[in-house]
Amino acid sequence: MQKRILTLEDIQKAHNRIEKVVKHTPVLSSDYINNRFGSKLYFKCENLQTTGSFKFRGASNAISELCVSNPDVKKVVTHSSGNHGAALACAAQQHGLSATIVMPKTAPKTKQDNVKQYSGNIVFCEPTMESRQSNVQRILDETGAELVHPFNDYRIMAGQGTAALELLTLHPDLNLVLTPVGGGGLLSGSATAAKGLNLDIAVMGVEPEIANDQYLSFRAKKRIGINDPKTIADGLRTTMPGEKPFATILEFVDDIVTVSEESIKMAMRVIWEHLKIVVEPSGAVPLAALIDGKINVKYQHIGIILSGGNLDLDAWEW
Amino acid sequence: MQKRILTLEDIQKAHNRIEKVVKHTPVLSSDYINNRFGSKLYFKCENLQTTGSFKFRGASNAISELCVSNPDVKKVVTHSSGNHGAALACAAQQHGLSATIVMPKTAPKTKQDNVKQYSGNIVFCEPTMESRQSNVQRILDETGAELVHPFNDYRIMAGQGTAALELLTLHPDLNLVLTPVGGGGLLSGSATAAKGLNLDIAVMGVEPEIANDQYLSFRAKKRIGINDPKTIADGLRTTMPGEKPFATILEFVDDIVTVSEESIKMAMRVIWEHLKIVVEPSGAVPLAALIDGKINVKYQHIGIILSGGNLDLDAWEW
Repeated sequence: MQKRILTLEDIQKAHNRIEKVVKHTPVLSSDYINNRFGSKLYFKCENLQTTGSFKFRGASNAISELCVSNPDVKKVVTHSSGNHGAALACAAQQHGLSATIVMPKTAPKTKQDNVKQYSGNIVFCEPTMESRQSNVQRILDETGAELVHPFNDYRIMAGQGTAALELLTLHPDLNLVLTPVGGGGLLSGSATAAKGLNLDIAVMGVEPEIANDQYLSFRAKKRIGINDPKTIADGLRTTMPGEKPFATILEFVDDIVTVSEESIKMAMRVIWEHLKIVVEPSGAVPLAALIDGKINVKYQHIGIILSGGNLDLDAWEW
Repeated sequence: MQKRILTLEDIQKAHNRIEKVVKHTPVLSSDYINNRFGSKLYFKCENLQTTGSFKFRGASNAISELCVSNPDVKKVVTHSSGNHGAALACAAQQHGLSATIVMPKTAPKTKQDNVKQYSGNIVFCEPTMESRQSNVQRILDETGAELVHPFNDYRIMAGQGTAALELLTLHPDLNLVLTPVGGGGLLSGSATAAKGLNLDIAVMGVEPEIANDQYLSFRAKKRIGINDPKTIADGLRTTMPGEKPFATILEFVDDIVTVSEESIKMAMRVIWEHLKIVVEPSGAVPLAALIDGKINVKYQHIGIILSGGNLDLDAWEW
């Protein structure tokens, strides 16, 4: 079932499949933020999604498709910095499946608790992509579970694209959509949705400067790996773009820009104070691109996917 | 224009008057919270309202009515712990009026900044009701401004009731509505809306144990004053119920319960972590009543008005 790139139809089908189980999250805006950045910004609040991140969209779509393609499935497995893990555990629980989540032992406690809340089995690993993958492979070999990869999976990519689809249905006049980019599931899905609806909508991915694998790869037009990055945006610590989302990103994405750690923190603060919502560092990354002056002022109606809101409040210091 | 109590019609008229300027705020829920408290809880997120609190509803309605009843009005004045002040400044600015806000000098800096953002003129006073009122009287005498009292005003009460009206239109099956209670504007408006729609819906006010003027007054069936309370719920530091809202509260409210400071803090934490939104201490007070076991388990569908989200992040410690 190889496909070269994702299509709008894939996302529309995912939307129809999951619309009754995912939350149609609100879109917020703030006079203060609009005045400060000189553009109208519309924030699609996936931090308010079930499990606290957009990842529940992709996981719901993947599990739903999986239960059709393999009605005998009993177990799923994945690796995750936390949000995909909780999302997969929740979607699996809703379908009566068991889920095993390989998580770096450095994952925020909130994200660990979030997996447990939905009865996911956690297997801790070292905070490297190699350790994640070898642990997943071992579990696949031992248990015969089905892999639901956090981003290198068309079912996941299509599900993640439904957030942008909802946003653009509500605000078809946007001329730029910004998303954070880690492995590329959200960005590839969002870009496919936007360009499928209107080729004039620009789509950009934003990632931390110190986790710039997508930035380097986009410019080189081939997937480039980096060493394990230490960014505070713990959801974006992937070391290499996924093969499947990257092909779609090359096709549909206009640019990838990077932001400083300091700007990510400032963006979080702006969102907490002025939108009155709790966003995790990864979710604040797109707004950080405006703080860093990386977005052309010609974009006057900007949609931002606020990816998630899971972080350890105790450990956080402004 | 004396009226004995507020009516549903007053609130419906306010709704029609302000629906294009106020945000139709989202209603959030959380599996974790529902499981923990054994009831389905629906949170009406007025922290996401313009100016960060429900107060913008009452202020918009009052200013809108005022501009009709006195077309020559140029200036308004009020006293406020902060949220009504910002709301009045914003509504006044939208109507081309100037607003002067008498605020206790101890008001959170965020709330001061919020008034300034909408070009409100701040006059600082001592943190006592006496100092607030004497400063307002002086300004009224000196400037001929119109008073828009934070709660002892039918226009304000009617506007505040529109949040419960929206909530109950979306969820007509609620059997209990909980609101924080300070001066009584929100509680009187919410109770009028709920009982007007369905007499079977119980309505309760919740206030800090150490700011229990409404609790004492409700039981005595007459307005009782207390000394200036030091609760962390800075929006609920009123010392005596307002005369007009109190008459309506006696008519329509089922009970008033009190909560500990510790429970308010715990409730805030639950809301931040599981609803992923920033709520100020006053807004967490209704959920604290569930933490403190003050709500009968027979109430299985509970609506909560989350009143606001304005607090100093720098000063906050868990």
